[in-house]
Amino acid sequence: MRFSLGCELTYAIVQPTTLILNIEPMRGPQQRVLNESLVVTPGMQSERHEAMETSNLYRRLVLQPGEITVRYEGEVETRPIAEDPVDVPEIAVADLPLEVLPFLYPSRYCESDRLGRFAWREFGTIAAGHEKVAAVCNWIHDHVDYQSGSSHSATSAHDTFTERAGVCRDFAHLGISYCRALGIPARFVSAYGWQLEPQDFHAVFEAYLGDRWYLFDATRLCPLDGIVRIGIGRDAADTAFATFYGQVESAPKRVWIEPLDGSDETAEWTTEAVSIAAV
Amino acid sequence: MRFSLGCELTYAIVQPTTLILNIEPMRGPQQRVLNESLVVTPGMQSERHEAMETSNLYRRLVLQPGEITVRYEGEVETRPIAEDPVDVPEIAVADLPLEVLPFLYPSRYCESDRLGRFAWREFGTIAAGHEKVAAVCNWIHDHVDYQSGSSHSATSAHDTFTERAGVCRDFAHLGISYCRALGIPARFVSAYGWQLEPQDFHAVFEAYLGDRWYLFDATRLCPLDGIVRIGIGRDAADTAFATFYGQVESAPKRVWIEPLDGSDETAEWTTEAVSIAAV
Amino acid sequence: MRFSLGCELTYAIVQPTTLILNIEPMRGPQQRVLNESLVVTPGMQSERHEAMETSNLYRRLVLQPGEITVRYEGEVETRPIAEDPVDVPEIAVADLPLEVLPFLYPSRYCESDRLGRFAWREFGTIAAGHEKVAAVCNWIHDHVDYQSGSSHSATSAHDTFTERAGVCRDFAHLGISYCRALGIPARFVSAYGWQLEPQDFHAVFEAYLGDRWYLFDATRLCPLDGIVRIGIGRDAADTAFATFYGQVESAPKRVWIEPLDGSDETAEWTTEAVSIAAV
Amino acid sequence: MRFSLGCELTYAIVQPTTLILNIEPMRGPQQRVLNESLVVTPGMQSERHEAMETSNLYRRLVLQPGEITVRYEGEVETRPIAEDPVDVPEIAVADLPLEVLPFLYPSRYCESDRLGRFAWREFGTIAAGHEKVAAVCNWIHDHVDYQSGSSHSATSAHDTFTERAGVCRDFAHLGISYCRALGIPARFVSAYGWQLEPQDFHAVFEAYLGDRWYLFDATRLCPLDGIVRIGIGRDAADTAFATFYGQVESAPKRVWIEPLDGSDETAEWTTEAVSIAAV
Repeated sequence: MRFSLGCELTYAIVQPTTLILNIEPMRGPQQRVLNESLVVTPGMQSERHEAMETSNLYRRLVLQPGEITVRYEGEVETRPIAEDPVDVPEIAVADLPLEVLPFLYPSRYCESDRLGRFAWREFGTIAAGHEKVAAVCNWIHDHVDYQSGSSHSATSAHDTFTERAGVCRDFAHLGISYCRALGIPARFVSAYGWQLEPQDFHAVFEAYLGDRWYLFDATRLCPLDGIVRIGIGRDAADTAFATFYGQVESAPKRVWIEPLDGSDETAEWTTEAVSIAAV
Repeated sequence: MRFSLGCELTYAIVQPTTLILNIEPMRGPQQRVLNESLVVTPGMQSERHEAMETSNLYRRLVLQPGEITVRYEGEVETRPIAEDPVDVPEIAVADLPLEVLPFLYPSRYCESDRLGRFAWREFGTIAAGHEKVAAVCNWIHDHVDYQSGSSHSATSAHDTFTERAGVCRDFAHLGISYCRALGIPARFVSAYGWQLEPQDFHAVFEAYLGDRWYLFDATRLCPLDGIVRIGIGRDAADTAFATFYGQVESAPKRVWIEPLDGSDETAEWTTEAVSIAAV
Repeated sequence: MRFSLGCELTYAIVQPTTLILNIEPMRGPQQRVLNESLVVTPGMQSERHEAMETSNLYRRLVLQPGEITVRYEGEVETRPIAEDPVDVPEIAVADLPLEVLPFLYPSRYCESDRLGRFAWREFGTIAAGHEKVAAVCNWIHDHVDYQSGSSHSATSAHDTFTERAGVCRDFAHLGISYCRALGIPARFVSAYGWQLEPQDFHAVFEAYLGDRWYLFDATRLCPLDGIVRIGIGRDAADTAFATFYGQVESAPKRVWIEPLDGSDETAEWTTEAVSIAAV
Repeated sequence: MRFSLGCELTYAIVQPTTLILNIEPMRGPQQRVLNESLVVTPGMQSERHEAMETSNLYRRLVLQPGEITVRYEGEVETRPIAEDPVDVPEIAVADLPLEVLPFLYPSRYCESDRLGRFAWREFGTIAAGHEKVAAVCNWIHDHVDYQSGSSHSATSAHDTFTERAGVCRDFAHLGISYCRALGIPARFVSAYGWQLEPQDFHAVFEAYLGDRWYLFDATRLCPLDGIVRIGIGRDAADTAFATFYGQVESAPKRVWIEPLDGSDETAEWTTEAVSIAAV
């Protein structure tokens, strides 16, 4: 699938501020950027950095007081690998590549250390592998209300588990927490999400199964193959689309994504039926 | 300085269990392992993995029910670089290497996102650089009671800040949280700590200043040049000395560290007077 | 002082709902209601209940779907007792009337059990009595930012202590928590507050000193003798101006209070200089 | 049923301390104290206070440094009213006596405000009345592990709900929280509990149904008619058996309760089958 996507961010800079952006889609075998532009108004230099471990693309802007607009536009082709879920096994900790172990540890918004009893009681008897993570997603979809405004920036999985309401980032944090508690490495993904309403950045998660990372979205708000990945990390703390060191006021942002090729492929798109290896 | 150090860990394995150990000292320009042995009784294969990003040495053991003892012994030479604190500057976020940015983000036990107002109010006017992080350590030493048993495994900086009591890991988490809130990258260090009473693994932290990581210990329980580093990470979640996937019962552990060369160098050792670059 | 005050609340009732209001000023030796009216539109019966322990006036309305407006208007005369703070002693727990003991216990939003070390360290050496509670209020005023929108309905003193920002109810919760931690009974007061900007219900607190309850307001947003008390309780959980059992949508509320006698008495009004016994 | 019961508490008083005890059984129509003695060694005066609202019996001791032992012994006759659960209705908030409303509010350890979505989703369709509260207890029994040492003094229902382990006070806090979230007044009860192993003070809860308070014990560790009530309150914050204002060290306490009449009545005793009105 090919998508045209982008975002436009406007800020009033009050004091000298360093801005770290993570809005540019990642590159990888399953996700190719065909063309793109990033325009900062007024014009200025910006520095791009690809994180070694994650391939996230960061952009640093050093800003003086005044208004600034950042507009990113790109065309991206994704080639997600769809596999039959029954062919996607779970890997015992005894056999996991040791470099994925950090994704078993609890993080700022994913207190997997506190959710272990529940996770094992609820999901412990489900068949290991893609089916178990799918069960985690189904549980979240069935037990947590998607409700704008029900959470805030400090909300973590411990809160969402108790309060049973949240938005996409909360759904992802809870899914990650359950996976880690169950011994399945899991990480957070910020993304452009086709068909997300209202349009905004999206948040989903990946679990390490078989020999790669597989994409999951407990919100069911986007088809899995309509997701264009921006950043990956332990949780939302690692993947903010914009982080400020200074003082700014934000104007409303715009985010968009549309398929380039018309709708002929959409019949295959799905929220749950197949497993999608996004990396 | 040269140290003889080690630990002995004994577990009763109840069900098949995978054990990840992180007890072997790191290698680096300022820390050299002269010789070492790791003996598992009963004998078995174990796999060692050096994490690419951190250089932490992990050891994975796949265990069947029964009793197991792991004994590590080593001799380590450390060559910490002592610098005059006034020569150790703080680096603006505008100029930080982008690869240290993740150490500005909040993590499981370091909710730096919630401590910003306090940190800026308390430390905002102190001269940037080593002096500011030293002020953070002095504040913790003066305002938090070191008290065994006052915290537990889920205790985070938010808790310690309110309750004003903790142990070495809590002191480190609070120091890291203040640094991150102030825009100074900071990370957790598990260690062997000479003179720590009672003997146990120690926890300190590092702040990124100038062009390297500098060691800090708000507990003042060990001389900074008596610290032999084992693991680094975002916080204690990344650097547990032992993590189990399975079911075990622990016997009391033994940890030790003694200088090899007698006490002639100890007159220079210090808890605060100079800055120590450990990497 | 005499005040004209009132409020107007409008709700769209979605499903059959029971509404408990606590908007009518309390009666007591220092606070007399000269006249008042409560009009519900459309007209209906409502039941008033004076709580035995607190004298709070509750009003229960059983509502069917549709729009409802409640308008309360009253004229109230207050006769606060102003005393020289040095004459207001603290009472040891050994001598406290046992019926005030529950106001030493932690409550939903006042985790005094967790703030003891800090409170004793910070306020332990200040002279007992009114001066100590005044020091608590000064500390809050100096260390916590009054900022609309910085807290939410689940925010407690533990949060406010860490985040150092809040609104009137958070200031009161923190003051109550410190007092209880110090062995001084303290309770929450909802009120009409003259000069509060923007107009809304106000929240302050009382500490038990000498042989009565004394009023304190760490926000300094209203003169203490411009406060007309509505409800008292352990914390905000006990004194909501409106509690719904059902489903409603709220329109913006209006709250007002103005002095009846002109401004000739205002010269004496104060936020801090004297102690005010409100009961 | 008649019971012989008591406790013995020993403390080393380090600094002058005021001690508030709540260890003496309540009096009421369903619970009569036949005889009792409270002996303090060394001998001293103590003051007993019956709380107006709750009938809890508090005892205040003003202590100087040294060792002190308090021994309470009593014989108590209980006459719990056993009713058929189907005859015990739930009362709508529209019809509740207004004096029980405070037991609908969240409290220190019972964040019913955060558990509403879960409670309604899980229990909302169960028949109102005794059956619904029994379902709450069954849920807790089935989903939370009773495990000594799994919680601590700051643990609240929000924690227990997430971590799914606790002791009797945690079970009671969770039951109370669900009830309040469902619009059913609920309160905490400290008690002597026959057959509790190991012997200690017990904690259960009461829900207001029909026209009185009914006893529930989600732990199922004691027969409901083997419970002798000591104190009632919003939660454990109100009903500590001993509260210190000063500095003490505690020796292990002893608590006991045995039936006076042999075991002939025990066949009727039950943990769940009937509803027990304890007041």
